[in-house]
Amino acid sequence: MTYCIGLNLDEGLLFASDSRTNAGVDDVRRATKMRVFADAGQRVIVTLSAGNLSLTQNALNLLEHRAKHAPDQPSIHTATSMFEVATLVGDALREIRRRDEAYLRSSGIDPSGSFIVGGQIQGEPPRLFLVYSEGNFIESAPETPWFQTGEIKFGKPILDRVVTHRTSLEEATKCALVSLDSTMRSNLSVGPPIDLLLYRRDTLAVTQRQRLNDDDEYLNLVRRQWNDSLRSALTHLPSADWMR
Amino acid sequence: MTYCIGLNLDEGLLFASDSRTNAGVDDVRRATKMRVFADAGQRVIVTLSAGNLSLTQNALNLLEHRAKHAPDQPSIHTATSMFEVATLVGDALREIRRRDEAYLRSSGIDPSGSFIVGGQIQGEPPRLFLVYSEGNFIESAPETPWFQTGEIKFGKPILDRVVTHRTSLEEATKCALVSLDSTMRSNLSVGPPIDLLLYRRDTLAVTQRQRLNDDDEYLNLVRRQWNDSLRSALTHLPSADWMR
Repeated sequence: MTYCIGLNLDEGLLFASDSRTNAGVDDVRRATKMRVFADAGQRVIVTLSAGNLSLTQNALNLLEHRAKHAPDQPSIHTATSMFEVATLVGDALREIRRRDEAYLRSSGIDPSGSFIVGGQIQGEPPRLFLVYSEGNFIESAPETPWFQTGEIKFGKPILDRVVTHRTSLEEATKCALVSLDSTMRSNLSVGPPIDLLLYRRDTLAVTQRQRLNDDDEYLNLVRRQWNDSLRSALTHLPSADWMR
Repeated sequence: MTYCIGLNLDEGLLFASDSRTNAGVDDVRRATKMRVFADAGQRVIVTLSAGNLSLTQNALNLLEHRAKHAPDQPSIHTATSMFEVATLVGDALREIRRRDEAYLRSSGIDPSGSFIVGGQIQGEPPRLFLVYSEGNFIESAPETPWFQTGEIKFGKPILDRVVTHRTSLEEATKCALVSLDSTMRSNLSVGPPIDLLLYRRDTLAVTQRQRLNDDDEYLNLVRRQWNDSLRSALTHLPSADWMR
């Protein structure tokens, strides 16, 4: 499993993902779920993927391959809008799925995969999409400024409580870390390192990309302080007479 | 869906459950998931149920019916151990499932249901079981002192962080409320009122049972204060240089 978050905020976009992949409990590996397609001054596109790794990896590989070897075809590097990019990703996912689905199903393997696709292309504001396993997709809006994919439930309450489109990138990053940490504590299929990318609106450049390993000093400071704060908040909740 | 929590602590047992049931989004009702079988001085048995309501309700109805009309058969009111009670509940669930499963499946309805079963029978310590949909069951232990059933993921992180068998009933109740509130905020299929039952070890009586409606003053105080505490805790988390 996997856990990815993408947020479309007034200040820009935030992407966060774990790096655990497993084919059964005895084959646990690391694989980044984040891919970046950037052309400074022109476009920054980020994908986060969840689900069957061969499907999602090869959908993106197919896009890369075509961009290189069939330069006359529509490409993630030449698309003129993020809508076109999301369409390309959905189509590539459908193509790989058509190729592989029957073989996966014949072995009882779930042939699903999904993407969070976001970024900015010159001439457009930053945009964020959720591409479903079937290749269709939806776009974020100010009232629903974020998407999750993968193992989404453990880390959803804190996002529900805190994040609006007005949340700063800095605050949202802390919130995403807490959401990922809560998920990693409660579910072994989600694990470090954590990939983070903060994209500031209209910069059209990747300047704030970070990978936090399990022993990262800052990550562990956040973990300890958050844990202590939650325990203290619980202790300070009032009691009711009927509890005593 | 549903969300239920049962905890087996040094001080006693805690049971908490929501009251929402739905057959599709246009048929949402209230139904308590908690049933209490008590005989003061002799036994206190509590069940929390999740899954298909007709299966879980009728498994318990069957036990009640047999206790009344076939007094020579083993009964939840005469069982001499909580192990025997869990066996009876599992058997009743299997019996109703055998009766109904094919009909449910023919309409595409998931024929699953599960129980948290806990309590104390004179001569035994308090015990807590999780009865799976297949009628088999497991018992809690000091290192895993709680069970959840239903929509478990949203509210799991706070339990993971806080609860051990040494946690007081009062503290655990606040934690269960927070866990339920987080789940209700993030998932419409879980809703108030909240049923709570605190059972103090060796009392063999139900003295602390509480139903909190959505407009309950204490529940809303907890909700507000918890929300404010989380936001404040997040604001006070340190930032990293690479965020700015």
